[in-house]
Amino acid sequence: MKQELTPSRLPNRAISDPEKIKEALEASLFCTVSYARDNRAFSIPTGFCLADDKLYIHGSVKSHFLLEAKKHEVCISTFLFDGLVLAGSAFQHSVNYRSVILFAKGVEITDEVQKTAVLKTYTNRYVPGRWDEVRPVNEGELKATMVLGFDLEKASLKVRNGPPSFDPKDYRPGLWTGVIPSLMNWGEPVPDPNLRGGVPYPNYFKN
Amino acid sequence: MKQELTPSRLPNRAISDPEKIKEALEASLFCTVSYARDNRAFSIPTGFCLADDKLYIHGSVKSHFLLEAKKHEVCISTFLFDGLVLAGSAFQHSVNYRSVILFAKGVEITDEVQKTAVLKTYTNRYVPGRWDEVRPVNEGELKATMVLGFDLEKASLKVRNGPPSFDPKDYRPGLWTGVIPSLMNWGEPVPDPNLRGGVPYPNYFKN
Repeated sequence: MKQELTPSRLPNRAISDPEKIKEALEASLFCTVSYARDNRAFSIPTGFCLADDKLYIHGSVKSHFLLEAKKHEVCISTFLFDGLVLAGSAFQHSVNYRSVILFAKGVEITDEVQKTAVLKTYTNRYVPGRWDEVRPVNEGELKATMVLGFDLEKASLKVRNGPPSFDPKDYRPGLWTGVIPSLMNWGEPVPDPNLRGGVPYPNYFKN
Repeated sequence: MKQELTPSRLPNRAISDPEKIKEALEASLFCTVSYARDNRAFSIPTGFCLADDKLYIHGSVKSHFLLEAKKHEVCISTFLFDGLVLAGSAFQHSVNYRSVILFAKGVEITDEVQKTAVLKTYTNRYVPGRWDEVRPVNEGELKATMVLGFDLEKASLKVRNGPPSFDPKDYRPGLWTGVIPSLMNWGEPVPDPNLRGGVPYPNYFKN
């Protein structure tokens, strides 16, 4: 399987350190799950969380892509856009990014305690502390939800960071070159119209 | 092909209006291209631009995924995260998003004038006006670059927006429910260390 994990293009951007891979995954809020059927690819974006050195996704027990991911190895990818790289030539323009590509087959978590623990980790990853504040998941909801875990063994990370490639031939006085970082921020919370007056916005997110 | 374009899950979130699809694509900076080989899926995140009602990607003429996308129909997906949806129960938590899924085979643009025009649109999409400021693309660079165009005919858009689903049974006094919008911002530009003094930061981006 080695050839899959070593990118053929720009292999110098590849990082195989499991800790760095996990860091890049934790920094990405969503992933794209791709599976093949009749030698055609289908992709679905979804949320995920990490726990016990595994990547977990969940959804309806009727979801096609979860059922496929349980049967066959799928490709899970993440992409974090870190900035635009403005060089002296059009050709050298680039993007700073962190991207993980993972090949794995999903293992269904059927144990209710373990399943609930993953869903708690998942919820709290997006909204720290939320799980303990809301109405807990009930038996029926748990039954309707499939949770799949994916081993990170066949994961690889590709990173570009730093300034643009510099070619003195492309130097032009007055032309700005450098990096424009990209940032994800939270906007002003929009209260639920069904929220009955006076509930202060909780302090989940500090930008 | 109809069954591919009508999602089996939550079909009420599907939108087939071509203008809305293009709007969602324009709002997404990157896409994930997925192809199947030996009935296994492989995904690659990449930039893209729209022109003449087509989606264009580019890369090295040696790039595996471009060569695959030229031979077979691939799945191109975009995902725009618009906000976290905080409901009264863990189960009803959701995400506001716009996601396009497109099935198409790439058509290579070999005409040099057309190819250059696409690369200009691409560059200016990320950095408005940049193309005319930098050293233009040369013959060798153009030859080393493959540009593929994809028809938008088999594209579909899925959207969730608005407040959380409200179930009075899950109402808890003092629990905040609503939407936390997600915003993409540009950070403080980082000048190229090779930039010789006094080049003011251009006014490309207004947050």
